[in-house]
Amino acid sequence: MKNPEKSRPMSAISLARYLPILQWGRTYDRHALTGDLLAAVIVTIMLIPQSLAYALLAGLPPEAGLYASIAPVILYAIFGTSRALAVGPVAVVSLMTAAAIDNIVEQGTMGYAVAALTLAGLSGAILLAMGLLKLGFLANFLSHPVIAGFITASGILIATSQIKHILGVRAGGDTLPAMVVSLADNLIATNWITLVIGIGATGFLFWVRKGLKPMLRQLGLGPRLADVVTKAGPVLAVAVTTVAVWGLGLDAKGVQIVGDVPQGLPPLTLPSFSTNLIGLLLLPALLISVIGFVESVSVAQTLAAKKRQRIDPDQELIGLGAANIGAAFTGGYPVTGGFARSVVNFDAGAETPAAGAFTAIGLAVAAIALTPLIYFLPTAALAATIIVAVLSLVDFSILKRSWTYSKADFVAVASTIALTLAMGVETGVSTGVVLSIVLHLYRSSRPHIAEVGLVPGTQHFRNIRRHTVLTDPTLLTIRIDESLYFANARFLEDYVADRVASDCPIRNVVVMCSAINEIDLSALESLEAINHRLGMMEVKMHLSEVKGPVMDRLKRSHFLDALTGQVFLSQYDAMQTLAPKQGLNHPDNPSHAASTCSRSDPG
Amino acid sequence: MKNPEKSRPMSAISLARYLPILQWGRTYDRHALTGDLLAAVIVTIMLIPQSLAYALLAGLPPEAGLYASIAPVILYAIFGTSRALAVGPVAVVSLMTAAAIDNIVEQGTMGYAVAALTLAGLSGAILLAMGLLKLGFLANFLSHPVIAGFITASGILIATSQIKHILGVRAGGDTLPAMVVSLADNLIATNWITLVIGIGATGFLFWVRKGLKPMLRQLGLGPRLADVVTKAGPVLAVAVTTVAVWGLGLDAKGVQIVGDVPQGLPPLTLPSFSTNLIGLLLLPALLISVIGFVESVSVAQTLAAKKRQRIDPDQELIGLGAANIGAAFTGGYPVTGGFARSVVNFDAGAETPAAGAFTAIGLAVAAIALTPLIYFLPTAALAATIIVAVLSLVDFSILKRSWTYSKADFVAVASTIALTLAMGVETGVSTGVVLSIVLHLYRSSRPHIAEVGLVPGTQHFRNIRRHTVLTDPTLLTIRIDESLYFANARFLEDYVADRVASDCPIRNVVVMCSAINEIDLSALESLEAINHRLGMMEVKMHLSEVKGPVMDRLKRSHFLDALTGQVFLSQYDAMQTLAPKQGLNHPDNPSHAASTCSRSDPG
Repeated sequence: MKNPEKSRPMSAISLARYLPILQWGRTYDRHALTGDLLAAVIVTIMLIPQSLAYALLAGLPPEAGLYASIAPVILYAIFGTSRALAVGPVAVVSLMTAAAIDNIVEQGTMGYAVAALTLAGLSGAILLAMGLLKLGFLANFLSHPVIAGFITASGILIATSQIKHILGVRAGGDTLPAMVVSLADNLIATNWITLVIGIGATGFLFWVRKGLKPMLRQLGLGPRLADVVTKAGPVLAVAVTTVAVWGLGLDAKGVQIVGDVPQGLPPLTLPSFSTNLIGLLLLPALLISVIGFVESVSVAQTLAAKKRQRIDPDQELIGLGAANIGAAFTGGYPVTGGFARSVVNFDAGAETPAAGAFTAIGLAVAAIALTPLIYFLPTAALAATIIVAVLSLVDFSILKRSWTYSKADFVAVASTIALTLAMGVETGVSTGVVLSIVLHLYRSSRPHIAEVGLVPGTQHFRNIRRHTVLTDPTLLTIRIDESLYFANARFLEDYVADRVASDCPIRNVVVMCSAINEIDLSALESLEAINHRLGMMEVKMHLSEVKGPVMDRLKRSHFLDALTGQVFLSQYDAMQTLAPKQGLNHPDNPSHAASTCSRSDPG
Repeated sequence: MKNPEKSRPMSAISLARYLPILQWGRTYDRHALTGDLLAAVIVTIMLIPQSLAYALLAGLPPEAGLYASIAPVILYAIFGTSRALAVGPVAVVSLMTAAAIDNIVEQGTMGYAVAALTLAGLSGAILLAMGLLKLGFLANFLSHPVIAGFITASGILIATSQIKHILGVRAGGDTLPAMVVSLADNLIATNWITLVIGIGATGFLFWVRKGLKPMLRQLGLGPRLADVVTKAGPVLAVAVTTVAVWGLGLDAKGVQIVGDVPQGLPPLTLPSFSTNLIGLLLLPALLISVIGFVESVSVAQTLAAKKRQRIDPDQELIGLGAANIGAAFTGGYPVTGGFARSVVNFDAGAETPAAGAFTAIGLAVAAIALTPLIYFLPTAALAATIIVAVLSLVDFSILKRSWTYSKADFVAVASTIALTLAMGVETGVSTGVVLSIVLHLYRSSRPHIAEVGLVPGTQHFRNIRRHTVLTDPTLLTIRIDESLYFANARFLEDYVADRVASDCPIRNVVVMCSAINEIDLSALESLEAINHRLGMMEVKMHLSEVKGPVMDRLKRSHFLDALTGQVFLSQYDAMQTLAPKQGLNHPDNPSHAASTCSRSDPG
């Protein structure tokens, strides 16, 4: 597999062919090139204002956004497996970057930019390590509802954080209450010209989203062209407001502008290796990595499925890891695969990751040629771009969906949203993760346990509370609908102890194991304890319908030797052997309801 | 139920009858009284030296151990549900108390004792809250192997911590390496008389444990009397060494003695309400509560089963909570149900919690009358008592058991033991808990998924890799042997995406849900994503054998409307409907192994 391309003709992308992942390079042709180039043009147009804006959101100078869209994109094109994923700065990760660094270094200082590089480097290292160690499963700890709630709350936080730019005031805060208080305190200082620019740009961009495309189609434009024009909306808003500020000299009237942006290719930079700083940034970097990865993989998987292609989640980790390490050494900050831009890339006809590389070239050109032109760009216009982009993330329907479907999921979602808004992104998402794990363990710690009896005339066993079945007063058969592990081992102990202590005629207990896929050591010890305690009550314990792999394991323990009863292949065998006095049991009128034993002292 | 005893004759324990829990009070009689009194005498004899010794282990003055065995015991007798559990200071909790406070306050100061009271108060409040909120399930997070590993490592730590008293030197350390280093540094200062007393007492107590009882039985003593004499071993050791120190004036020769112990009933004390101190002690208090509860409940349940009685774990939390709050206000420190003393209590014939109350009276008498007598008691003798008691906790067989049974459990046990020894009790047990949860989630995040086919001539479906079954190249049927939830939702997505993308003939996918007990919202969204992505590949998705409760939930979502295929009652129905071209498939020679689709760009 190392050099199979030797037998093939040289192609335009020969530079990349010695790298292992570029399988697609071997079949690259004019068709793919056309698709990739067109997609790259559209994505570049979309990405220039977005990159500048998200850098602003992350508290960094605007060029950091451009730089983060060059080297990382090329590295992902080399190492990533998705053919349509567009990597770069995204809104939520930018917000998380700001939240992580704000508490440590002051914005606008050199230390802040270095911290951003370090965060990208750490995040890259974590992603790479997860990919190489096949730890992608760690991302599963983020449940869908928690992510949905977190993204919605982040959208609100981001939009709120941009209001200060629309008003032209200074304000701060990492949480919704803090932002609102700070905005209210500074409302008096509103710059009216900035406000007009901000509201105008926001309104225009909303209209471009909702109204422009149908109008262009009505005017007779082709769907693809209409799409390109629509995607150029933010560029237009940025251009018009920049010209307005320059022409009318609005910067002298207090309108905040982007100002000097260095002209040139991304610089070579070094993240900090201070253990103190790394210690402070480790948890935020982990959260950024996992959230970035989860979002990225779900977009990549959806787009791959459309063409019946595959992505490899562990290789995706490596691709995203390489991209972030690239960001750390070229003046960027943490990046991941963006949802909107990836869909645009795909719809515009991107066939291979080369589309990403061409986008990187487009942004490099912008970094060299365009930066002098954006001196007069008002930050209010960038803020408008962000607000319009992130409000599409806000979607409270997850609250209704989870409420209808599962109250436990609702609790996780509602807590994540409330805590993200009230206490910030890190607390919000961490609590969501912990809460969903706790709720899951809680649910599986109280498994469904049914007492079953024989359906007359069959060999099937059903719940005695739902069906008319044959039972025997000396025989208790319980079916446990869950694997047995430490979180539910004690529940089973309590259940059996309670049930048998209060029902004197019972002489045999059968545990029907058809739904048990696993018994861990805790559960094994609980079964031993149950067996031992039943033995002291002179009740025998039996098992039935134990699955093969579970039985293999039990045979490696001493449990089967200590078992007071037998292991039956089927529950029907158990019933035939152990139940001499079978009688019909009606669910609404149980014939042998628990009869309390005499439980006190004799004499 | 409030005053049913009005119709009953007055009894000796009328004082307690207005309290809710004392059901046993109604049937209390001479038989129970005899049993309880005898048990109380034996447990009192056992508890006096133990209480003094464990207080020493906790870094507290000896009387704290006596006080912790009075009010807490009475409160547990009122609120607890176990008839044989003996509550008081125990070794592991004493060690955890020392570890928690050592870092905050210096030993021997007034602040140290107040911190111990505060720890007991916090622990009591946590246990009470868990009981009232029915949060007993939280204790399930401690898996059996983690507890076993933790107890073994604690036993080693405790025994090592007492060596300094045997040597008569000063030494410190909360971890095994720190203790060993500190002992080695101070070895030169060994007091030889102390060493003789310590080794003598330790040897004597080992002999009492192993050799005395058989000898007494051979000499013709009845089993119960032999037992009482054996239990009195520590009292004898304490008495002899005390007399020796007093008679030979050994305290003047550098032998450490207990010294002045206040004479009288437990004082009324107040824990600290400083939020700073409470913040520092909260996590240790939580760990102490949970470990104390788990140990206590498992002893109580075993003893209750012997008499076919029940205990109520939530009420146990309340009982232990009340006991600890009692300790906080009467000069004690955290307490829980002890294993050895509860078994002794039970074996000696305790019939009701009144035995505990009588024990408390015994210890109160000791606190009033005996304290002047222990002035000359050498701490080396107390240390010997502790060493002999805790070495029975050390049991490395859990390592072998878990290695044979399950490597995941082994990792949890080995890490808990190693970290407890190397980094202390809190780190050890916390890591064990987190690790066992992570390992469990990891296992269930990669559920067993089998591709199944029809066993010819039956309606049964089996794994195509194990059985010769009928399959159809256009139909993929997968059976998932696990409930679907967030941790395995993505695994399923990846599995289906991979499997279908690489096998072009597939037109229908059936998910056989017979082993799925639950589908949470994350898994539902994954199923929706799978359905959507399969739809884009023009493959239909179907379900079969969905359990009732799972189906009820799915009906509350939009999934069934969006489903491209059908829901079949049985997998056999699905096969009949969807598989026109059935053919035999041998496990060793699959007839339609995944044939790779053409996956690259046309043209």
